[in-house]
Amino acid sequence: MHATMMNTPLSLNHLLERAGTLFPKSEIVSRLPDKSLRHHTYGEFYQRTRAFAAALKGLGLQKGERVATLCWNHHAHLECYFGIPAAAGVMHTLNLRLSPDELGWIAGNAKDRFLVIDDILLPLYRQFAHLHSFEKVIVFPFSGAPVPVEFTDYEALLAQAVGKTFTYAPHDENDPVAMCYTSGTTGRPKGVAYSHRSTILHTLVGCLGDFWGLKGTDSVLPVTPMFHANCWGVPYGAVMMGVKLVFPGPHLHPDDLLDLMTLQPPSLSLGVPTIWMSLIQTYDAAQKEGSPNLGRWKLPKGMRSLVGGAAVPETLIRAFDAHGIWLLQGWGMTETSPLATVSYPKSELVDAPLDERYRRAALAGVPVPLVDLRVRGEDGQDQPWDGKSVGEIQVRGPFITSSYHEVPVEPDKFTADGWLRTGDVASMDALGFVKISDRTKDLIKSGGEWISSVDLENALMGHPAVAEAAVIAIPDEKWSERPLACVVLKAGLAATPTELNTLLLGKSFAKWQLPERYEFIDAVPRTSTGKFWKMKLRERFPG
Amino acid sequence: MHATMMNTPLSLNHLLERAGTLFPKSEIVSRLPDKSLRHHTYGEFYQRTRAFAAALKGLGLQKGERVATLCWNHHAHLECYFGIPAAAGVMHTLNLRLSPDELGWIAGNAKDRFLVIDDILLPLYRQFAHLHSFEKVIVFPFSGAPVPVEFTDYEALLAQAVGKTFTYAPHDENDPVAMCYTSGTTGRPKGVAYSHRSTILHTLVGCLGDFWGLKGTDSVLPVTPMFHANCWGVPYGAVMMGVKLVFPGPHLHPDDLLDLMTLQPPSLSLGVPTIWMSLIQTYDAAQKEGSPNLGRWKLPKGMRSLVGGAAVPETLIRAFDAHGIWLLQGWGMTETSPLATVSYPKSELVDAPLDERYRRAALAGVPVPLVDLRVRGEDGQDQPWDGKSVGEIQVRGPFITSSYHEVPVEPDKFTADGWLRTGDVASMDALGFVKISDRTKDLIKSGGEWISSVDLENALMGHPAVAEAAVIAIPDEKWSERPLACVVLKAGLAATPTELNTLLLGKSFAKWQLPERYEFIDAVPRTSTGKFWKMKLRERFPG
Repeated sequence: MHATMMNTPLSLNHLLERAGTLFPKSEIVSRLPDKSLRHHTYGEFYQRTRAFAAALKGLGLQKGERVATLCWNHHAHLECYFGIPAAAGVMHTLNLRLSPDELGWIAGNAKDRFLVIDDILLPLYRQFAHLHSFEKVIVFPFSGAPVPVEFTDYEALLAQAVGKTFTYAPHDENDPVAMCYTSGTTGRPKGVAYSHRSTILHTLVGCLGDFWGLKGTDSVLPVTPMFHANCWGVPYGAVMMGVKLVFPGPHLHPDDLLDLMTLQPPSLSLGVPTIWMSLIQTYDAAQKEGSPNLGRWKLPKGMRSLVGGAAVPETLIRAFDAHGIWLLQGWGMTETSPLATVSYPKSELVDAPLDERYRRAALAGVPVPLVDLRVRGEDGQDQPWDGKSVGEIQVRGPFITSSYHEVPVEPDKFTADGWLRTGDVASMDALGFVKISDRTKDLIKSGGEWISSVDLENALMGHPAVAEAAVIAIPDEKWSERPLACVVLKAGLAATPTELNTLLLGKSFAKWQLPERYEFIDAVPRTSTGKFWKMKLRERFPG
Repeated sequence: MHATMMNTPLSLNHLLERAGTLFPKSEIVSRLPDKSLRHHTYGEFYQRTRAFAAALKGLGLQKGERVATLCWNHHAHLECYFGIPAAAGVMHTLNLRLSPDELGWIAGNAKDRFLVIDDILLPLYRQFAHLHSFEKVIVFPFSGAPVPVEFTDYEALLAQAVGKTFTYAPHDENDPVAMCYTSGTTGRPKGVAYSHRSTILHTLVGCLGDFWGLKGTDSVLPVTPMFHANCWGVPYGAVMMGVKLVFPGPHLHPDDLLDLMTLQPPSLSLGVPTIWMSLIQTYDAAQKEGSPNLGRWKLPKGMRSLVGGAAVPETLIRAFDAHGIWLLQGWGMTETSPLATVSYPKSELVDAPLDERYRRAALAGVPVPLVDLRVRGEDGQDQPWDGKSVGEIQVRGPFITSSYHEVPVEPDKFTADGWLRTGDVASMDALGFVKISDRTKDLIKSGGEWISSVDLENALMGHPAVAEAAVIAIPDEKWSERPLACVVLKAGLAATPTELNTLLLGKSFAKWQLPERYEFIDAVPRTSTGKFWKMKLRERFPG
């Protein structure tokens, strides 16, 4: 027999229509470069987004073609989130923290046809414009200054299209809507392409009560960049539930974020540990007698907060809880849309001692619905949930990538039975909490951004005086991790850290990706199979 | 280009595995016929459900074959919810309130291969056993008495299979998992068959914060029968989130429900208005000085409550709110899985006067995500959202039926562009709240159950003394609606209500489906096209 259900495809366009009809009065607040606030309603967002989609069609955008964005968090970026897919295009978010070389390469690899860019980011664009030719560069006049004549004005484009009839292009639920590039251990970044289906499923799961817990009366402040795994998918959830959105624009300094939280108190905020750490330190310092900021800020009462993108230290959880704010930690990757696990107070923990709850909150958490997660030991067997036995985290599910854009499937990335090999090493405890202990991939996570140690090593070893270079992560209170380069010089030759940094800057590394420190050593320890034995280096240089 | 996401099928089996591994300590409490409570853990539920699935496979159940259930709400019925699909079968819930004739016909139409039945319902089974031959009748020893030897003992079946290896049958996400029959205007009931996909999507949507708002720390009391549109889908959501479940068994008397709420306080309960009305009246009466029940019951503090299956009067909402319990009204049908709209406090209502909030709470509510809803006027156009213009509610979405089991698609049930015609007439207001004003289908909703007026009319007109009969709904404080039969006698002939009731009982109507009252009239008013003009009758007999 057959089920009798309709085969209606899952669609982002449904969320946009829902927002425009059911929640026309919900608010979107964006902080502009001059720190003033611009207010939009969902009704305006709906009109503008459809106008943008109509304009893209008018420019000849074809189904599946990429439109890149290079933007901070604001209303126009949200219009791209929905408008580009509404025009059947694929939104490709470019990470403004990457080096110009890398940005140019990525845009070329993705064959981005158009670019939507904040006017204040045009200096960055000019540094990689020679590497990829966008057919049209659409400039969002974020600062309010006139758009240079050689570019297309985003607002003028919308103004032409507002009120014109627009019809959504028919689509399959597996058609792509968005694309993010992610750094691998080595080699160039690779593209992950999300579909209508994966995005809707991820949105529904993320919104559940134990995770984002979004309700229509919420107000969300996404500090997480909209170019990081689609801002963890939260903007989609907010639009589905009709939630007020408060975007910080380019102002991520703790003073600015605290000003914004005081002015437009969110009930849910999200960001990386590095920023959250500065935030609470700044706030706590302001409470001290004699502080010039005494009385300036108010942390929103009962605010929930999602922190992810790097391990969340227990001290951070305690620091926020002292103000009645419970941090929810999530773990995931660009490849997992990204939500794979969340550390929420499971029912078993309700009556547990507070120390126990803090300890669990500092773990990566338990898998969310629709995500199958296993920890595979060296022997290819699933590890017992004993909190000790470690193995590689492997995941499977409808919002997890099965390949990379136009890259042949690599066996070290996916298992024979179709699971994603995350490269993270972890154990699981009796309650199903994942504890990440190590990384099989050689990557450093600094301020929520990846740095490839292998890429740094290869570049360093390109210096004529360098015999060997091994890069490891060292813990860093502010950035979570920073790279430490262990360098072996060739006999009789010399190289200074400044010299090596100059070399790296010339090889498309961004400033923040440079090693925090150099250690000149006699030899890199090696395993029996001849590989760099980084564990030994980590023991020698614990921080 | 293509999206890179995995094509993992949505699956109920994923929820079962999740429950068994992540929530082994969550509780399931069932009230037995003797009113004692039986406790299970999710760990036991998981073992038992897999054992049941293994046993069904052992009995030769093939993919897509139907296993009927005739059960009250309890843990074994939950095991059927997951165990039958785990064995690749389709759970077909039989409504124990239907007449034996109808039950027999439905089981035959569905070609149910096996039946799982509560021992205390065997007397009902014996009344329709001659109408359909189940290959095996599996009796759940709910009362604790030995199972008669001619039947299969559910517990013995499980005991044989416990601990044996079990592997899920591979399936497509569109494969059926459950089936419910629903009464139409006329003719026999028709089957709606849900798929893995529709069930998972409905579960995710229902669990969202503004609707069921399920969190792992919740405790749910489903008074809604598990044979009514899968208990509104709530058991699936509870299992997904690891929520404690409290099942009332056969004890739906207000005293019993209040006892249970006092013993095992739920944070969320669900039921039909008829039962909720008796509940609050009984509770309020017990608070009066001199009541024999003074101090016997405690309404759970902060309990949320879902009410649906029939219109919820504002008085009921006010009566519960007086005790700090906010009723959430939902509207839907068996055909819509069933959640289509929910009347929740939208953000626009946060600062609205309480009267305004009560008024909105008494409406059917706003469409949930993934459900497209339109109100089509007589002219085939969508009505404006002005709170006045009425039309038929039509819906579309991935958990809405597109046909009925083995019935050719009828044009009066579905529009040419693929929307379900619900037969309910409604308007929509500026906030998107649906207000149901009438029914195009001739059905009476009594205590959450449908009664077909056309079927009653046809049966009554079968009496030799009856010239014409028109049945309308009259409002009823307890049952929401009850049937009133307007009968025109043939000249010179006579028939008494008792005589007519006897006739109906002989024609497969259940006792509760009989007209509440008979009015003997001279003629049935007719429209210009010669149809019964029931509006005129409703005006004449308002109650």
